[in-house]
Amino acid sequence: MNMGQTRWAIAEGYIPGDSLNDDPAFVSHETACILNLGNQEANVAIILYFTDREPVGPYRLQVAARRTLHLRFNDLTDPAPVPRDTDFASLITSDVPIIVQHTRLDSRHPNIALLSTVACALG
Amino acid sequence: MNMGQTRWAIAEGYIPGDSLNDDPAFVSHETACILNLGNQEANVAIILYFTDREPVGPYRLQVAARRTLHLRFNDLTDPAPVPRDTDFASLITSDVPIIVQHTRLDSRHPNIALLSTVACALG
Amino acid sequence: MNMGQTRWAIAEGYIPGDSLNDDPAFVSHETACILNLGNQEANVAIILYFTDREPVGPYRLQVAARRTLHLRFNDLTDPAPVPRDTDFASLITSDVPIIVQHTRLDSRHPNIALLSTVACALG
Amino acid sequence: MNMGQTRWAIAEGYIPGDSLNDDPAFVSHETACILNLGNQEANVAIILYFTDREPVGPYRLQVAARRTLHLRFNDLTDPAPVPRDTDFASLITSDVPIIVQHTRLDSRHPNIALLSTVACALG
Repeated sequence: MNMGQTRWAIAEGYIPGDSLNDDPAFVSHETACILNLGNQEANVAIILYFTDREPVGPYRLQVAARRTLHLRFNDLTDPAPVPRDTDFASLITSDVPIIVQHTRLDSRHPNIALLSTVACALG
Repeated sequence: MNMGQTRWAIAEGYIPGDSLNDDPAFVSHETACILNLGNQEANVAIILYFTDREPVGPYRLQVAARRTLHLRFNDLTDPAPVPRDTDFASLITSDVPIIVQHTRLDSRHPNIALLSTVACALG
Repeated sequence: MNMGQTRWAIAEGYIPGDSLNDDPAFVSHETACILNLGNQEANVAIILYFTDREPVGPYRLQVAARRTLHLRFNDLTDPAPVPRDTDFASLITSDVPIIVQHTRLDSRHPNIALLSTVACALG
Repeated sequence: MNMGQTRWAIAEGYIPGDSLNDDPAFVSHETACILNLGNQEANVAIILYFTDREPVGPYRLQVAARRTLHLRFNDLTDPAPVPRDTDFASLITSDVPIIVQHTRLDSRHPNIALLSTVACALG
C-alpha cells in the first residue's frame, strides 16, 4: 500500500523576519508538514539550499509511526539556524515513505497571508 | 476513463480557533473538497493523524454520483470533534475513485487568508 | 513532447458574491488558467458539478495555439451563469493537451486573499 | 537518483502593476523558484505565453549546481520586460533536471496576499 515517498523537494523557502506579534500562532513561519502513515518511525534528514552559498545540513528529526509533524523551519538550529529574509529551498529525505506539504504564514503586514502546496515528490 | 484515485492524504491540517465573525461563510475553516465524477455513490472514510496521540476515525460520509462535497473538518463530530488550534493531517479513502483538494480559510485576523492545494494522491 | 493532458479536474470552486469594488481586477473571481503549448487550437469543454443538483454544461471555448486563456468562471453564461456563494467543482476536457491551474481572488473583505494550485491531471 | 524534470509549465502568471510600497520585499511579484539539486550548472530557458500575441523568449539564465534561484519575472528584461497587469503563462526548460515552484506576492491592497503551487512537470 502506497504510504508516500522517501524524497521530497520544496523549491520555495523564505522566513519573513518580521511578524505581527510574538504569539507563536502568528509569528511568520515556514512549515514542512510531514505525515507518517506507516508503522515504523521515520528518520528524516533535511538539506537546505541557498542562492549563493553551499547547502547546509543535514538537519535530523524523527516522525513517529502514525503521527504528523508540522515542522517550522524557524525552529531548526542544528547544524545552524535558518537565516531570515533569505531565499532558500529544501530537500527532505526519509528512510520510510512519508508525505510532505509546504505552508507559509506571513504576518509581516497587519494581516496574515498564507500559501500551501504539496511538495514535489522525487521518488 | 480516469476518475481520480481512491486514497488521498493531506499532510497539513489546522482549524484556527478564532474567526472574524459568526457568519458561516467567514468562520475559519479547513476543507476537503471531494469530487465524485463517477456514476456510483462514493463511500468515504477519513482518518485524522495528530502529533502526539493515536489517530482518530474513521469518519464516514457519502458523496453521491456526479456530485461534489466541500467537507468542512469543522463539522465532523463522530467519533469525535476535531480539536481547534491543533496540528493534524488526514487520510481520505473511498470505495470508488474521487478527486480531493484541500483549502483553508483563516479569518483570525480582521482580513481573511486562503490556501489551497490538490491533495497527495496515493493510488 | 509532453504538452500536458486532455482531462483535468478542479474539486474546489466557489465564487464569493461580494467584492471589494467593481474594478474588474479586484472583483472576487475563480479562474482556470489554461495554457495551450501546441500548434493546434484547443477545443475545451467544461462541466460544472454541484452539491445537490445535476451537473451543468458543457461550456465550450477555444484556446488558440501557443496562447493562454485565464478563464474567469464568473464570465461563463452559456448554458447558464455560475451561481455565486455556491460550492462547485469542474471537469475540463480538451481535444489537444493543455495545462490547467486554478486560482481564486477573494475580495469580500477589505483586503484580498489568493489561492492557487495546479489542477488534478486525469490523463 | 531523481533530481526533478527538465520541462515545467506555469499556466498562471500575472504581475500586479501596483504595490504597497517600494520595498523590494513587498513589491508585488511573480516568482519561479528553481532548485538545482545536481552537480552541474543548469542552463534554463523561459518562454512566455500571452492571451492575444505571439510567445516571447527565450529568456536565458543559469542556476549553479546545488543552488536555488527565486527568479522574479519582474526582473526579466531580455528580450523584453514582462508587461504588468497582463495575463501570461510560462514554459521553463533546462538542460539538467530542476524543480520549479510558482509563487506570487500581491501587495496592491494595503495587505499582502500570497499564492504558491508546484509547477506542472512535463517530463
